[in-house]
Amino acid sequence: MGGLSVLKQLLRVFPQENYIYLGDTARLPYGTKSAGIIQQYAEQALSFLLQKNVKAIVIACNSVSSQFREKSFHGIPVLHVIGPASRLAVQVSEKKSIGVLGTRATIESGRYRDSILAFAPEAEVFSQPCPLFVPLAEEALVDDPITNLISYRYIKPLLDQGIDTLIMGCTHYPILRASIEKVVGHRVSLIDPGEALATELKYQNSFVPKQPGAAGRPLKILTTDSSNSVRILLDLLLPQVECVFEFVTL
Amino acid sequence: MGGLSVLKQLLRVFPQENYIYLGDTARLPYGTKSAGIIQQYAEQALSFLLQKNVKAIVIACNSVSSQFREKSFHGIPVLHVIGPASRLAVQVSEKKSIGVLGTRATIESGRYRDSILAFAPEAEVFSQPCPLFVPLAEEALVDDPITNLISYRYIKPLLDQGIDTLIMGCTHYPILRASIEKVVGHRVSLIDPGEALATELKYQNSFVPKQPGAAGRPLKILTTDSSNSVRILLDLLLPQVECVFEFVTL
Repeated sequence: MGGLSVLKQLLRVFPQENYIYLGDTARLPYGTKSAGIIQQYAEQALSFLLQKNVKAIVIACNSVSSQFREKSFHGIPVLHVIGPASRLAVQVSEKKSIGVLGTRATIESGRYRDSILAFAPEAEVFSQPCPLFVPLAEEALVDDPITNLISYRYIKPLLDQGIDTLIMGCTHYPILRASIEKVVGHRVSLIDPGEALATELKYQNSFVPKQPGAAGRPLKILTTDSSNSVRILLDLLLPQVECVFEFVTL
Repeated sequence: MGGLSVLKQLLRVFPQENYIYLGDTARLPYGTKSAGIIQQYAEQALSFLLQKNVKAIVIACNSVSSQFREKSFHGIPVLHVIGPASRLAVQVSEKKSIGVLGTRATIESGRYRDSILAFAPEAEVFSQPCPLFVPLAEEALVDDPITNLISYRYIKPLLDQGIDTLIMGCTHYPILRASIEKVVGHRVSLIDPGEALATELKYQNSFVPKQPGAAGRPLKILTTDSSNSVRILLDLLLPQVECVFEFVTL
């Protein structure tokens, strides 16, 4: 469900596009799963979206992007957040000392490290798996003493290393931004992968926007199970957007 | 993986039995899923175990027991933890004022409330969903300031209601017992569902123990995905037990 933070950014930059959002709520979270299972579930989701005649697929999940790396799927472009977030981090970091927060799957894949070093071989990268952040975000404990304590536990070691830029390398983490900001203060730049992707697409002009008014509303939210978190996170991230819900099987 | 706390109690009381442990690590946690999905996944797991020629199946998960209530499956007895835990709570509670901690699926099902009231219609039941306890247990943050803070948040409202007995109504929660005990103190009796089940089976004599020495070792641990948590929780709960691991597909 963290993908909603990416959808929010895409809607902000490309409000006229039609979006189909697919959340595998029956089997989430992905960030604690192994590479093989993530690849298998990702292919099921991509195959499902292919049948919907989409013109592009955004993998709005760092854990999936860290394992399923293809840039196209049966001829349809597949867009990822890890590349844009890494590129933006390298651009804004003066000291080239960059922290990465992510799920265990994302951090263990080493994809952020590889991607950052490809843009700036001299960079220093400090990574931290944050397994409790996804359940905190799904519970919408967005600015809570519990979240602050856990944020401090995860982020303090990175601050001690002297980072000046921190990638929120899981699409759930921008939901906890208020708490993360409390810990890092204003001298560290926070990178939101969804924002990085949307901004990059805007300047690449790879999406050809339709005429104003053609946007498909209400927004289609497809999930594999009912879930309180979906409604909670939609209220939190996209309170103004009218949605229709549908259950699907992958 | 919380089911390991039930396996620990069964091994203690029935060390001579052969056990096959099945953990659906690819799709966990179950406690955040809807009733329909839990039933569907439970039937897949039970069908799988049936093919292994087991003589009984223990559903070592309160979230599954709250939705899949059958007491037999194709002629094989299915044992649950909710009944034994409720019965024991009613026995030890002097004031018949009982708290229940559980996943959202378990609490919303109302199964503990119904089960306790069936044994003691005069009882007062106070329930609390604890969605952060499963990830804390899977991270083995067993006695940590973060866990203590979250335990206090969940349990304090129940203490304010005057409970004298508290059911740890998810098989993960006994892993956090040290922290839960810190919050409740010694005047509240803690009920471990796995312990309640094992004790009840012992006195019912429903398992016919084999001769000493016939026990099947090493223990078979079947999972649907690899997972750090399995090893961490096995080390924590069953450090002396030799295990063999196998991946299976449900």
